[in-house]
Amino acid sequence: MVAVYPGSFDPVTYGHLDIIIRAAKFVDRLVVAVANNSSKSPMFSPDERLEMLQKTCGHIDNIEFAVFSGLLVEYADKISADVIIRGLRAVTDFEYEFQMALTNRTLNDKIETLFISTSTQHLYLSSSIVKEVAYLGGNVDSMVPAIVGQAIKHKLNQGNLY
Amino acid sequence: MVAVYPGSFDPVTYGHLDIIIRAAKFVDRLVVAVANNSSKSPMFSPDERLEMLQKTCGHIDNIEFAVFSGLLVEYADKISADVIIRGLRAVTDFEYEFQMALTNRTLNDKIETLFISTSTQHLYLSSSIVKEVAYLGGNVDSMVPAIVGQAIKHKLNQGNLY
Amino acid sequence: MVAVYPGSFDPVTYGHLDIIIRAAKFVDRLVVAVANNSSKSPMFSPDERLEMLQKTCGHIDNIEFAVFSGLLVEYADKISADVIIRGLRAVTDFEYEFQMALTNRTLNDKIETLFISTSTQHLYLSSSIVKEVAYLGGNVDSMVPAIVGQAIKHKLNQGNLY
Amino acid sequence: MVAVYPGSFDPVTYGHLDIIIRAAKFVDRLVVAVANNSSKSPMFSPDERLEMLQKTCGHIDNIEFAVFSGLLVEYADKISADVIIRGLRAVTDFEYEFQMALTNRTLNDKIETLFISTSTQHLYLSSSIVKEVAYLGGNVDSMVPAIVGQAIKHKLNQGNLY
Amino acid sequence: MVAVYPGSFDPVTYGHLDIIIRAAKFVDRLVVAVANNSSKSPMFSPDERLEMLQKTCGHIDNIEFAVFSGLLVEYADKISADVIIRGLRAVTDFEYEFQMALTNRTLNDKIETLFISTSTQHLYLSSSIVKEVAYLGGNVDSMVPAIVGQAIKHKLNQGNLY
Amino acid sequence: MVAVYPGSFDPVTYGHLDIIIRAAKFVDRLVVAVANNSSKSPMFSPDERLEMLQKTCGHIDNIEFAVFSGLLVEYADKISADVIIRGLRAVTDFEYEFQMALTNRTLNDKIETLFISTSTQHLYLSSSIVKEVAYLGGNVDSMVPAIVGQAIKHKLNQGNLY
Repeated sequence: MVAVYPGSFDPVTYGHLDIIIRAAKFVDRLVVAVANNSSKSPMFSPDERLEMLQKTCGHIDNIEFAVFSGLLVEYADKISADVIIRGLRAVTDFEYEFQMALTNRTLNDKIETLFISTSTQHLYLSSSIVKEVAYLGGNVDSMVPAIVGQAIKHKLNQGNLY
Repeated sequence: MVAVYPGSFDPVTYGHLDIIIRAAKFVDRLVVAVANNSSKSPMFSPDERLEMLQKTCGHIDNIEFAVFSGLLVEYADKISADVIIRGLRAVTDFEYEFQMALTNRTLNDKIETLFISTSTQHLYLSSSIVKEVAYLGGNVDSMVPAIVGQAIKHKLNQGNLY
Repeated sequence: MVAVYPGSFDPVTYGHLDIIIRAAKFVDRLVVAVANNSSKSPMFSPDERLEMLQKTCGHIDNIEFAVFSGLLVEYADKISADVIIRGLRAVTDFEYEFQMALTNRTLNDKIETLFISTSTQHLYLSSSIVKEVAYLGGNVDSMVPAIVGQAIKHKLNQGNLY
Repeated sequence: MVAVYPGSFDPVTYGHLDIIIRAAKFVDRLVVAVANNSSKSPMFSPDERLEMLQKTCGHIDNIEFAVFSGLLVEYADKISADVIIRGLRAVTDFEYEFQMALTNRTLNDKIETLFISTSTQHLYLSSSIVKEVAYLGGNVDSMVPAIVGQAIKHKLNQGNLY
Repeated sequence: MVAVYPGSFDPVTYGHLDIIIRAAKFVDRLVVAVANNSSKSPMFSPDERLEMLQKTCGHIDNIEFAVFSGLLVEYADKISADVIIRGLRAVTDFEYEFQMALTNRTLNDKIETLFISTSTQHLYLSSSIVKEVAYLGGNVDSMVPAIVGQAIKHKLNQGNLY
Repeated sequence: MVAVYPGSFDPVTYGHLDIIIRAAKFVDRLVVAVANNSSKSPMFSPDERLEMLQKTCGHIDNIEFAVFSGLLVEYADKISADVIIRGLRAVTDFEYEFQMALTNRTLNDKIETLFISTSTQHLYLSSSIVKEVAYLGGNVDSMVPAIVGQAIKHKLNQGNLY
């Protein structure tokens, strides 16, 4: 089974890494795919996000990394993915993820979306929260790996107010 | 019973049409009212949205179309509407719609808000999803009537990135 | 428009009365229908529930009362109702009511379910809460009309532990 | 990947069959496991439920059927399942399923729970609704396969009030 | 500030203990009050539940324990409590707890209900889950203190099927 | 017990005042803290918001007012607050507030967040709704104190489209 785990990963958090490690165990091949949405204003470029992913979970055997743009289901189809993996945290998440899964099913009924629950420890963690806490001067060591925390600090010092 | 069905309709989807057809059956007169909110950045002008509504459900006998601005309850009062019709899809919807209904009741206790559940087939469909899928090059034929799909494509070709 | 407002009404609360008064304003004829579900263990018999309804809102012109058993949509069809009226309070309600509305639509697509939001004052009121508070010796004067409060007290004195 | 899809299946509905067919496509082997919970009062015996499952989806190649009792994660471990499959319908479902998934993870961190969204057509369908509609004399043809509908009717004629 | 933390505590879990320890820090006096609801079928008697609470958190200075019956707000008033403490876990909880808080406010507007979020580690833990897992032979060491786990095992061996 | 009640208060509504009055009763000292988030586009400056708070609830004995920027938990620590007070309205609120409370706990485990339910009358009221209604020409007398209503009107006349 080939799976794609799409996301903005702006930047990758311990919540994402939890999902990646869990998913890598039951799939044959896991493609972690960074969404290149030109309409959003990310803190990190797609390449920077890819690099942080590689540094934090690139050691896992059956994982690959990629940047994609356009429709997720078309990308999934192109790389012959059988399923899309998504992490679930809370009810608000659930509603949005459900909508996306059903929309993606409408667009391509052959690719199933599988939801995994995030570990309770990171149940309410998100990239936005991490950036907001860092911006306000808080410590994000329990939320992201050290190299990600440093990269955020570097961006903020450069005047990127996210 | 006179009913007003307000919305942005930017653009009208099969989900809206489902509500319109259902509502037209049990009310005497249904006014589909396009909200002209200057603060949002719509893809279509109010007149374009009105035209798409007319083309897709203008054949129903007891339906009228209008553009309104300002407070919904004042507009409803002006056209002597007894009730406001709103479609309900999911929990996130429900919370927001509840808030609006209770606010509108505070502003005018004589006009009741009636919620109808969207058909399961379109339960997670929204104008935003349609525009996002179209923008990413996906097929929206199962989400909006053909003339709406063409209008979106035309807008996107003009460089309207929504 | 003919509407049926079904419920257990075991017993009627100010929340139900709020919905009844609101609905009676925009429908031509409102049938308040007491569900006779043999599988539940109600505090009051269907006839007692009907009597309390009649005493508390029987003065409204376009209202009728009835007891029904079997499928709601079949009953609604039999009395030529165009719509089913349901009050909405909270999210848990919403989920259940949505399920029932979609199930009823599956059984009879001609009868629409209309949801009205309960007034904020009674947003979390239910017959069960009233019975529980009364059973524990609390004052239910703000939750049910006086004659209903007396009827509950009477039942509890008879040893009906609900 | 070996997956177990546990449930009461009392009886199997089109919603369950939708999940089974979807899951069978992306797993190597799917064990549909009927929970034998002595504390509930099911309409059908575990063997009857198993038989209905076999008759309605036994033709799929990589599916097996079994009855299990005790802890799900222990059963999953015994049959060397990598993942547990669960269908998601609505928010209430989600909360409960999330709780079960996190509890199961506490009991055995090696077996992941994967959630799939049910098709919109059956989004609010449940075995309980089917039994309630059938008990009240309604038509359940759109909810369960014909042989299941007949089995329910047979049970109800025998005086099983469910 | 005097606070009452009411509950069934049938039996006390690490989730309850988390709330107790947190609340004891910011209140002057905390009364942990075991509800004696004759209408439910608890696994443990009120006295057994009280004893387990005392053994697991009786060492905290400003804590007292009691059994109460009847209306919570009347009990709170009798012991001069200023506030009621409740732990919040998930959305389903929230809805129910909100309903109880608003009902209690209707009954006595002077006593406020304060909600605290349970620690993420125990976010989906409940006494029912603990009993169900134990009944099915699972290990509950991460859910309840050792003496509680032993008490449950003892009850189950006595043939109490909960 | 020292409590901080943080918020944007842009502007203060009857919903906020309800929470303030309730909280002031059970805490020793209540600091109402206006968040100075440079990234948002508020209608009123922090000082204007502070002034409206002082005029509407400054008469309460144990209340103080302040403007803060940066991390809430650091501010709470600086003023020796034991708890953070937050009002809860609806499910969407709950999810967000839960996330913030758990994030704040991660950042400083000594300061607890206490949630109070808003009175039912103002359950769906928010500063945004007030501004939107005022902008559309509606009457906000039931939502905010008179001086706040006048201040909003003044801002809108100045061409502040919020």
